Amino acid sequence: MGNCSQRCNDYFCRPKNTNIRIKLPVVCFTWQIAMIILFGVFVRYDSESDAHWPETMIQNNITSNTENDFYYRYPSFQDVHVMIFVGFGFLMTFLKRYSFSAVGFNFLIASFGIQWALLMQGWFGSLDPSTGKILIGVENLINADFCVAGCLIAFGAVLGKVSPVQLLVMTLFGVTLFAVEEYIILELLHVKDAGGSMVIHAFGGYYGLTISRVLYRPRIHQSKHLQGSVYQSDVFAMIGTLFLWMFWPSFNSAIAYHGDGQHRAVINTYLCLAASVLTTVAISSLSQKTGKLDMVHIQNSTLAGGVALGTAAEFMVSPYGALIVGFLCGILSTMGYIFISPFLEKNLKIHDTCGIHNLHAMPGLIGGIVGAITAATANELDYGKQGLINTFGLTGKLQSRSPSTQGGYQAAGICVALAFGIVGGAIVGGILRLPIWGDPADENCYDDEVYWEVPEEDEENPDSIPPILEYNNHMIHKQQEISESNFSVDHCGA
Amino acid sequence: MGNCSQRCNDYFCRPKNTNIRIKLPVVCFTWQIAMIILFGVFVRYDSESDAHWPETMIQNNITSNTENDFYYRYPSFQDVHVMIFVGFGFLMTFLKRYSFSAVGFNFLIASFGIQWALLMQGWFGSLDPSTGKILIGVENLINADFCVAGCLIAFGAVLGKVSPVQLLVMTLFGVTLFAVEEYIILELLHVKDAGGSMVIHAFGGYYGLTISRVLYRPRIHQSKHLQGSVYQSDVFAMIGTLFLWMFWPSFNSAIAYHGDGQHRAVINTYLCLAASVLTTVAISSLSQKTGKLDMVHIQNSTLAGGVALGTAAEFMVSPYGALIVGFLCGILSTMGYIFISPFLEKNLKIHDTCGIHNLHAMPGLIGGIVGAITAATANELDYGKQGLINTFGLTGKLQSRSPSTQGGYQAAGICVALAFGIVGGAIVGGILRLPIWGDPADENCYDDEVYWEVPEEDEENPDSIPPILEYNNHMIHKQQEISESNFSVDHCGA
Amino acid sequence: MGNCSQRCNDYFCRPKNTNIRIKLPVVCFTWQIAMIILFGVFVRYDSESDAHWPETMIQNNITSNTENDFYYRYPSFQDVHVMIFVGFGFLMTFLKRYSFSAVGFNFLIASFGIQWALLMQGWFGSLDPSTGKILIGVENLINADFCVAGCLIAFGAVLGKVSPVQLLVMTLFGVTLFAVEEYIILELLHVKDAGGSMVIHAFGGYYGLTISRVLYRPRIHQSKHLQGSVYQSDVFAMIGTLFLWMFWPSFNSAIAYHGDGQHRAVINTYLCLAASVLTTVAISSLSQKTGKLDMVHIQNSTLAGGVALGTAAEFMVSPYGALIVGFLCGILSTMGYIFISPFLEKNLKIHDTCGIHNLHAMPGLIGGIVGAITAATANELDYGKQGLINTFGLTGKLQSRSPSTQGGYQAAGICVALAFGIVGGAIVGGILRLPIWGDPADENCYDDEVYWEVPEEDEENPDSIPPILEYNNHMIHKQQEISESNFSVDHCGA
Repeated sequence: MGNCSQRCNDYFCRPKNTNIRIKLPVVCFTWQIAMIILFGVFVRYDSESDAHWPETMIQNNITSNTENDFYYRYPSFQDVHVMIFVGFGFLMTFLKRYSFSAVGFNFLIASFGIQWALLMQGWFGSLDPSTGKILIGVENLINADFCVAGCLIAFGAVLGKVSPVQLLVMTLFGVTLFAVEEYIILELLHVKDAGGSMVIHAFGGYYGLTISRVLYRPRIHQSKHLQGSVYQSDVFAMIGTLFLWMFWPSFNSAIAYHGDGQHRAVINTYLCLAASVLTTVAISSLSQKTGKLDMVHIQNSTLAGGVALGTAAEFMVSPYGALIVGFLCGILSTMGYIFISPFLEKNLKIHDTCGIHNLHAMPGLIGGIVGAITAATANELDYGKQGLINTFGLTGKLQSRSPSTQGGYQAAGICVALAFGIVGGAIVGGILRLPIWGDPADENCYDDEVYWEVPEEDEENPDSIPPILEYNNHMIHKQQEISESNFSVDHCGA
Repeated sequence: MGNCSQRCNDYFCRPKNTNIRIKLPVVCFTWQIAMIILFGVFVRYDSESDAHWPETMIQNNITSNTENDFYYRYPSFQDVHVMIFVGFGFLMTFLKRYSFSAVGFNFLIASFGIQWALLMQGWFGSLDPSTGKILIGVENLINADFCVAGCLIAFGAVLGKVSPVQLLVMTLFGVTLFAVEEYIILELLHVKDAGGSMVIHAFGGYYGLTISRVLYRPRIHQSKHLQGSVYQSDVFAMIGTLFLWMFWPSFNSAIAYHGDGQHRAVINTYLCLAASVLTTVAISSLSQKTGKLDMVHIQNSTLAGGVALGTAAEFMVSPYGALIVGFLCGILSTMGYIFISPFLEKNLKIHDTCGIHNLHAMPGLIGGIVGAITAATANELDYGKQGLINTFGLTGKLQSRSPSTQGGYQAAGICVALAFGIVGGAIVGGILRLPIWGDPADENCYDDEVYWEVPEEDEENPDSIPPILEYNNHMIHKQQEISESNFSVDHCGA
Repeated sequence: MGNCSQRCNDYFCRPKNTNIRIKLPVVCFTWQIAMIILFGVFVRYDSESDAHWPETMIQNNITSNTENDFYYRYPSFQDVHVMIFVGFGFLMTFLKRYSFSAVGFNFLIASFGIQWALLMQGWFGSLDPSTGKILIGVENLINADFCVAGCLIAFGAVLGKVSPVQLLVMTLFGVTLFAVEEYIILELLHVKDAGGSMVIHAFGGYYGLTISRVLYRPRIHQSKHLQGSVYQSDVFAMIGTLFLWMFWPSFNSAIAYHGDGQHRAVINTYLCLAASVLTTVAISSLSQKTGKLDMVHIQNSTLAGGVALGTAAEFMVSPYGALIVGFLCGILSTMGYIFISPFLEKNLKIHDTCGIHNLHAMPGLIGGIVGAITAATANELDYGKQGLINTFGLTGKLQSRSPSTQGGYQAAGICVALAFGIVGGAIVGGILRLPIWGDPADENCYDDEVYWEVPEEDEENPDSIPPILEYNNHMIHKQQEISESNFSVDHCGA
């Protein structure tokens, strides 16, 4: 410890580098105040949520308040909202001593992210030209949730290895990159991606993986004993899995075209996810000597179908097409956990705590490809004349774009998402390496103790603990004290 | 162990009969591929989810995309979906070491079941006569979820005692039987059963109970130490209970007649369930020496009201009628747990892990009877002329059927459901007795270890375990090894 | 124990005063039968849920069944329903050995409360003048859930210290008081309070706090070892927190004016809650020496924004206004947990188990004030002429009431809610002090064992427990027996 401090800068080697008592509050307060100011300058209600709506109704010959778009988007929004906060949050509780951080940090960064996303997406998308204001309604809330999903995916790659301050920084840049990337893909290239295979999953996945690569910890094995699940934590994680799985049809249909578009997106996603479950179970069982199932696969790969149908969900992929996509994605995603994740860690030094490569990045790419192919082969026979226009929005200036050209643009969208994820992740990863963010020491990774007041263990009847156990507890506390006093030492060699 | 093997066939007595490494993947892959082929041949989008919908709109004078039935069924569908995957899944996590299987197998068989149900119900119900295709929309998804509910109920009776392969077989036949039974009851007999008291609950209940009878294990007491709950598992189970309870109004109204029908079904179910809670608590408290409540009753009998109003929810049972049904069902269901379940096990050799007799089978019968009586006493004064037609659908050829005749048909529906459950269960039970499905040995029932990679126990600070505990762990592991090595031995005497 | 019994009445000092085997069933049965009778006399379906709806449609020129209000209220209702049963229920599971009671008693009293609320709110609100009947539809169900929310808030203050019988009594009077208070505030004073800052949260908060004051136990420290959380129970509580947080936009918008009113209420609540999360995290981190976060704050104070926007959610507070409210409430609520709760306990003898003062009472008052100010400053420029009428309902006789006058009435509403909470709480607290309700002894507070059959602890492999642990278990059980035999003794000195 003595000579180590000579190799580091003073700040970095001081005994309690995980003390975030100043950093975290400063970031939270500053950013929240910035949000208030920016919202004050830029954000207003859109016409359907403004009290002047009755006048708008008269102008647009709307006869009933129930024609407000609120009623046709809000149920989908609530499902998406549950996916963001309960789905992603609980999916990551699988680690034995990191459930507080999983749910709590997910809560924190999503709450910040949705505010920043409303601004960023507003500036790039729904800025009212006459007033220069961002006009928000329920569809903007859905899009903000979507945007945050990309950052939460990235969180999965670095879970347990970063501080909440780092996560907030990662979210700030992630949302910013997302909004630009989304603008390029959806607006400039006019690519369709209602469920975000490319825009959300591929981008978020590679953004997180690249950051994880930059922040690679060669001595992460020092907290190996915490990098697994316990029985209860695996059951908690299934809450996340199931809410993601059940509401994924809402995710893929939430901003699809009203009517048959949303309807079809739901049916396709529902079928695709069901097929994923069966092939995930099959491969998981095959991968073990005695055919036992692995909870990691069930928790994650069952969802791959939803990711992979993100782009094509609203297209006429037909029910059996959706089943085929789910069939393949369940297989590939599970194999990813068995073969690719160890490979990435060993050969590319990418440590991916939640396996987001297998759940988001790779299925996201597949989703982009499926979307490109389906778009390229679209025709009036399958869609009808008006159906083709409604689904692909090829009107006005885009009228001359043929389906096969659209397929090419779709493929270009994949590349943009990938580029933003990897380049953005490299830059943000570099920023996160600065020794000022309060990240945990290698031996304290995956441990809630670092950032949370964790309750004492349950002794059931603490007043009846016999001497032998009391002694043990005493020893445990003593060890904890020791480990607390030399936090952060391991960074010295980095 | 030596001479035992002489009494069995070789396959059955081999040391690791619970190895499902070949069986489970083969079943999953084969069936999923079969689904893809059958969907390719038979399943297409219905008019409201097809991209040709704009043309349909013009033909039918529909002016807005928001008139798509999607918007009026989808919120109900999502609630039902949550009931199927989180509700049923978590309700069964109450066993101390069977939560992975409860949630995981529920997930697996429901995912297979909904696909097969779309086909079976399609062939019997929504086959388009001109094209020979099954046209699916959101209402079909709801019906598929309903169909699967029947199989999940049956799962509750055999929970912990069968292999996932057996469960898949049980679901395959269960869905098949369900679709035929449903067709006879709803289409041929024109019986009303929107919430499925007869079609889902009575059928599923007796199907499961009969299978459990056929698979009776005289030496199940060998795993008695695992056939109970622990504190945390009971709390997990309450997640299932509450989501079932809260969304049951959506279940009973999901496919009811639009407008007042759905509205009334929600109100009736809401009230009925509330009354069930109070009488369940009352009987549970009465049944214990010191008035303490039993979690098993709270987890299950509180739901009996929802089951018992499945048929009559959309009828004019009036609010107080709904309360009376809930009042009685809470009492009967709780008494079922106290008196009937032990009786069934002791005298009829029906071992019912989750007590589905008390939660589904018996309340399902009550529901059928309530429905028959309510239908028989329906009149124009209570319903109005058009209301009577909307509610009972007695138009066209059925115009001459009087309410009292309808009541008779309703009663006939109960018998059909019962017959399908018992006869079907007996046949399927026989199939499941074949020694090829990898079911667990008597002493390994209710144990996730058999089919899951279960994480090592949490030692909190594994590096600080004092010698005495390490020794204990060592002993535990040793015992596990021993028990693993003699899996399946107990079957020999069967 | 001997001379103590001379100071008490016989009933109160008998060894097992927590035996509720007669009391609880009697209360449940009597009240449920009363509900059935009263519903039989008073409650009928409203026009939209009655089978005569087709005739109503013709009378009102309604052309489609999907114009039934059911479709525009039901998704919100379901979200509110989830908040009441899962949200409140699981939020209170944080105590290490009181999760059964938290979820179970919440379930019981809410189920009774919604029935009684339908009657009480019906008599005061929706009584049909011509028939003298209460006509119920989905909006009544939402209002009943709202009413019960007030009682569940009060439950939070006394959590762990009362019997289920006391809770039922508390709910009976709580609902009664609520209905009268609501009638005075909303109908007589014509105050707007769609999300119930005053009517629900301030009332419920002070009702509970006053009861807790009256039931103050000077020797509650005797069960101090149970008055904390364990790791798993904190994760369970986060399920409650998140479902409350996610669905709060539905809560505040559920009965707002259709169209822009509901739409705006959702946006405002969404933003306000997001801001609360960041400032809660900031203050929580600041409050600890090393910047660690406290789960109690994250579980509760993150929700304060939703409470504080209950009144103003549907007003034109503007997006940044919502953020400011959330910003301040996150700070104040967290500081409440750090400074005010200890103060209340030490100086005012108010012991507040869940900290409802900081989550409901204080933010409820803030919400009332925010509403009064926003109402007083409302003008035609911001709302439009019709918008002002729709939002504040100042038509007919109220036409002459100016916004600033309305602001004064809003302020008066706060006082009414406060007065009902405090005076009502004092009276009900006095009733609950009667020694007949089976409340737990001071040393048995926060313990499920008193009212529930709690499963034996999980020994993982019970047959392999080594002698030393068996001995410990033996000792634990012995201690339990001892403690069971002298239940209730501690009351003697009171």
